[in-house]
Amino acid sequence: MNEINNENLAIIAALDHQKRTLFRSQFLKLHFYDQTQLFASFTAKQRSRIYQFLTPKELGDMFDEFEVEETTVIGFLKEMEPQLAADILSEMYTDNTVDILGQMDKADLATYLNLMPADEIAEVRQLLNYQDKTAGALMTTEYVAIDQHKTVSTAMQIIRHQATNAEIIYYLYVLDDAQNLIGVVTLRDLMVSDKRAVIQTIMNPHVYSVFVDDDQENIAQKVREYDFLAVPVVSRTGHMLGIITIDDIIDVIDEESAEDYSGLAGVNVDDTRETPWRAAIHRLPWLITLLILGMSTAGLINHFDSLVSQASILAVFISLITGTAGNAGTQSLAIAIRKISVENDRKIWHLISNEVLTGVIIGFTSALVITLIVGFWKSNFILGGVIGISMMAAIVVANLAGSLIPILMDWIGVDPAVASGPFISTLSDLTSVMIYFSVAQLFLAYLT
Amino acid sequence: MNEINNENLAIIAALDHQKRTLFRSQFLKLHFYDQTQLFASFTAKQRSRIYQFLTPKELGDMFDEFEVEETTVIGFLKEMEPQLAADILSEMYTDNTVDILGQMDKADLATYLNLMPADEIAEVRQLLNYQDKTAGALMTTEYVAIDQHKTVSTAMQIIRHQATNAEIIYYLYVLDDAQNLIGVVTLRDLMVSDKRAVIQTIMNPHVYSVFVDDDQENIAQKVREYDFLAVPVVSRTGHMLGIITIDDIIDVIDEESAEDYSGLAGVNVDDTRETPWRAAIHRLPWLITLLILGMSTAGLINHFDSLVSQASILAVFISLITGTAGNAGTQSLAIAIRKISVENDRKIWHLISNEVLTGVIIGFTSALVITLIVGFWKSNFILGGVIGISMMAAIVVANLAGSLIPILMDWIGVDPAVASGPFISTLSDLTSVMIYFSVAQLFLAYLT
Repeated sequence: MNEINNENLAIIAALDHQKRTLFRSQFLKLHFYDQTQLFASFTAKQRSRIYQFLTPKELGDMFDEFEVEETTVIGFLKEMEPQLAADILSEMYTDNTVDILGQMDKADLATYLNLMPADEIAEVRQLLNYQDKTAGALMTTEYVAIDQHKTVSTAMQIIRHQATNAEIIYYLYVLDDAQNLIGVVTLRDLMVSDKRAVIQTIMNPHVYSVFVDDDQENIAQKVREYDFLAVPVVSRTGHMLGIITIDDIIDVIDEESAEDYSGLAGVNVDDTRETPWRAAIHRLPWLITLLILGMSTAGLINHFDSLVSQASILAVFISLITGTAGNAGTQSLAIAIRKISVENDRKIWHLISNEVLTGVIIGFTSALVITLIVGFWKSNFILGGVIGISMMAAIVVANLAGSLIPILMDWIGVDPAVASGPFISTLSDLTSVMIYFSVAQLFLAYLT
Repeated sequence: MNEINNENLAIIAALDHQKRTLFRSQFLKLHFYDQTQLFASFTAKQRSRIYQFLTPKELGDMFDEFEVEETTVIGFLKEMEPQLAADILSEMYTDNTVDILGQMDKADLATYLNLMPADEIAEVRQLLNYQDKTAGALMTTEYVAIDQHKTVSTAMQIIRHQATNAEIIYYLYVLDDAQNLIGVVTLRDLMVSDKRAVIQTIMNPHVYSVFVDDDQENIAQKVREYDFLAVPVVSRTGHMLGIITIDDIIDVIDEESAEDYSGLAGVNVDDTRETPWRAAIHRLPWLITLLILGMSTAGLINHFDSLVSQASILAVFISLITGTAGNAGTQSLAIAIRKISVENDRKIWHLISNEVLTGVIIGFTSALVITLIVGFWKSNFILGGVIGISMMAAIVVANLAGSLIPILMDWIGVDPAVASGPFISTLSDLTSVMIYFSVAQLFLAYLT
């Protein structure tokens, strides 16, 4: 990477000395992603020079590659003359343009839209209307399409013409006279076909497409299974509207897995650049909610106060039983969230009964182990048995809760990943204590 | 999907009635992935017919798309004549062939290797040697390369010739006389260039490549940032060895995120098709280990037995303090694992100090809330203060453990995702109880 760093120094020097031609020749050689990395390290003054040195098209190509939050990009755009910002937005791929415009306040949105070309305004407005996390919100309109009656040589001409604008030129989508999607031809097919062949005769009519209102999670799953580089998006009537490219699919896969992961931990892991203050503010509401829920467990133990006074040995095993049940419940939760979100597996009774049965086996084994340990330690196998029975029951209930709760949330339309691990642990504390003290009360005479 | 189901019925009928031509015309029209889905639903008898009806090349194309475990594919191969299996393995992309051969026992491996073409044997043997989870293990050797001195029109001929064999024809890698990678040309570049132009003059010399021993996680990160469809793999001396395609990168991203997720839950979420018995057997070792660790918490509470006898009210808040600290520690753990694995961020002191500071803020706020609740509830603000101070200290320690432990594991070369959420919770139970009872002992006189 040393070579690149030296290059970067040369680029910065050219910029600082206002050597426009030198800067352009060096900076434009970089990969767009490297351009964004370098750009992000510049001062406001350096950035203002770049806005003059590069064309809107060159800036748009770079802006397409930003991997930062939309709000950061909006910050850059607002540093420029509004017309330049609007020009950059028109040069970018529509899906990225729409992502950025969608995060702007209404006044800015109106300003930039007014400065964009009329045909683009209509397109952008249309895309802004699609619901988040659907095909419509992910797709771009820069694809290559061709009429079924055209020839291979025409197709090649169209691709050559659109090569610099289309987001992916590997697939050529075939439309009928009503602009409905009826087939696909790959660039590979075109290259090995006779130049005079009619597209209709060489196209693959088994074109896989998604509906504009399809959920992004299902689309990502399909693209992965079929190893597509892009997938076409059609209206419910078969009209071709756009394409979703593999780079956006990867972002979806990442977003969905980060959501599942965040849910399990009860913390948003995408907020990794936070200061301690902001992190605390984001985490506290959930922790305090769980603290209040935890108070009901404390209240329950308080309710059994006389039991604990009579047999203080019971206090010794509270955290062991709640902890073990919490661990088992978290495992069930993780499996359930994964099954629901990744595999779209909704054979729910099968999932729940599997987890409960697993809980019975795990619970029985753990109970056996703990009964023996406690029995020998305290020379009291009835105490051991009470702990064992309570632990088994607590584990089964925790497994039931861990698998049932995300399924219920999925049913009522809430993302099951919200049923976080900490929530299941805290809930399982309550049920575990209830089970434990109820069992202990029955055998109180033998415990003291 | 109705149409496809009817198609499937027609295909199955053709197969069952041994109508070879009809079967071929219908089955080969399906996308390879759909072929695998249908194939997987067939009986052994139906499969044995398919092995006769399709060519090794056609079977190889389908086998390339299998998304099932390698052992399942090996099962299919072993149903066939060994020569057919070897032919299919030679027709498949080398990375997939190697994945399958790598899972075979030595006898089978020797059998199939002996039946494969000599040049392929050497290549496969070489690839089998690369370490798991490195570029070498992911790459395929079916790429398109060209000498720097050739022209655009020669390049187009080469691509046309290799179109059906190469895994991706979108990038053409440019080699010097020593077979070292010196540039890249996209098909897009070729299509818009003069046919007589020399490759060297139109190539992009800023070709991004990875070393054959690079870690798959870092490669996946780069491919995502740069939005590549494939990345070339070179030896430490710059010799071109293969390419890694985007579909394999997606599998890496998925594998790594499943590992992080599994770690957080203390359960392998990839084992989702398990019976309760197998699930229990996989989960029990970890749960029993944590149970034993939990016993030390029980032992500690037992050590403070006289304290609990004197002030049984202390038992009421054990699970509240351990639970809240466990929740906070799990949040820190999730952030730390994510920072280490996704962002490759190893500014460790910054991470730890951030988490500890967050713990102080969260701990102080939770302490304030719980002091007030307990103070009013029990009309005893000293008791409230004891619970509050203990909770704050327990949270800070849990946050420290949650961020420090995965970092320590990363240092000693263990995947930090193994530092599971349940482990942190159980460990935090121990430290929380120690803090709680130590603080309580100081204020014992005021608690009863």
